[in-house]
Amino acid sequence: MSTIPGYTLGTASVSRSPITLVDFDQMKASTLFGEDDVKYLRLSHDVVKDSIEEILDVWYGFVGSQPHLLASFTGKADGKPLGEYLGGVRKRFGQWILDTARAEYDQKWLDYQHEIGLRHHRAKKNKTDGAPSTDIVPFRNLFALIFPVTFTLRPFLARKGHSSEDVDKMHAAWVKSCLLQLTLWSYPYVREGDF
Amino acid sequence: MSTIPGYTLGTASVSRSPITLVDFDQMKASTLFGEDDVKYLRLSHDVVKDSIEEILDVWYGFVGSQPHLLASFTGKADGKPLGEYLGGVRKRFGQWILDTARAEYDQKWLDYQHEIGLRHHRAKKNKTDGAPSTDIVPFRNLFALIFPVTFTLRPFLARKGHSSEDVDKMHAAWVKSCLLQLTLWSYPYVREGDF
Repeated sequence: MSTIPGYTLGTASVSRSPITLVDFDQMKASTLFGEDDVKYLRLSHDVVKDSIEEILDVWYGFVGSQPHLLASFTGKADGKPLGEYLGGVRKRFGQWILDTARAEYDQKWLDYQHEIGLRHHRAKKNKTDGAPSTDIVPFRNLFALIFPVTFTLRPFLARKGHSSEDVDKMHAAWVKSCLLQLTLWSYPYVREGDF
Repeated sequence: MSTIPGYTLGTASVSRSPITLVDFDQMKASTLFGEDDVKYLRLSHDVVKDSIEEILDVWYGFVGSQPHLLASFTGKADGKPLGEYLGGVRKRFGQWILDTARAEYDQKWLDYQHEIGLRHHRAKKNKTDGAPSTDIVPFRNLFALIFPVTFTLRPFLARKGHSSEDVDKMHAAWVKSCLLQLTLWSYPYVREGDF
């Protein structure tokens, strides 16, 4: 069992994704995601696994530097950053890096993507951590972050001496995986029937 | 005046975007989009302007090869590709390449992004061309296409002898611009208040 509070992948508390694995295969094809991407994501696992805290420092530094992004981690009443909430999310964010690099696209993973989407949306934001924060991570911030996240990951992908071609391929696989995951996370934001 | 049917940027038929230029500046910051990106997008303008038809051939080839993507250009009744509709969209798609590379983010541009979103959504799909096609481009296909579009653009960006560093920067600026534009286009898909 995981010791990360609120990390519920594979548990009974996660409801079924409205998207099927067949749908997801089609989504992968739309973004040119193939077996090579699985291979390069998994190659990235051992590259990044010892740098998780450093990577999170970079990402948290970026979010913390932009008030409109940090807002999603502030108190709804006083607008001040919520340290416990930031810390709780951070542990799961570190696990997300490893899960993304693991690239195991089974029903449990798919269901958990939907859960992550709900936790960004007003449907379930704050509930996992009992945080007195804002109601929703606005949709406009979701996909935008793919660029800073993957761009700042790149130097970490290059840390263990892989060729620049291999680093490029790991990076591209991360971009595709993020596009796919963020699309899955968007489900609760999208109008009925429009997904 | 443009001679491209349905290309209405800057005309009175385009309604005001619900997003302001101030909102858009914030969105740019979220994706690390800065003045350098404007510079590199504009550098790409002269690089791609003579290759528009070739680029469109590649993109149409990709969409045409995947039945679930091509579906948005097929007849609602018989599921057969609609040649006139594909051709009408193609002319505007070519202009979109040039407009993306022009990187002029004024109110007219912003309003037209909203119009493009409406034309993908059930709100206005098919109306511009009077096409008897499907009701909506599903949300799940929107962001996924950023990868194939920008990945296959890259060789064209390298065609005029720029350094690989400059090609990388043009490519990155295109990825960011696409993330921003697709976010704007998503507005009609997103539930009231969640954008």
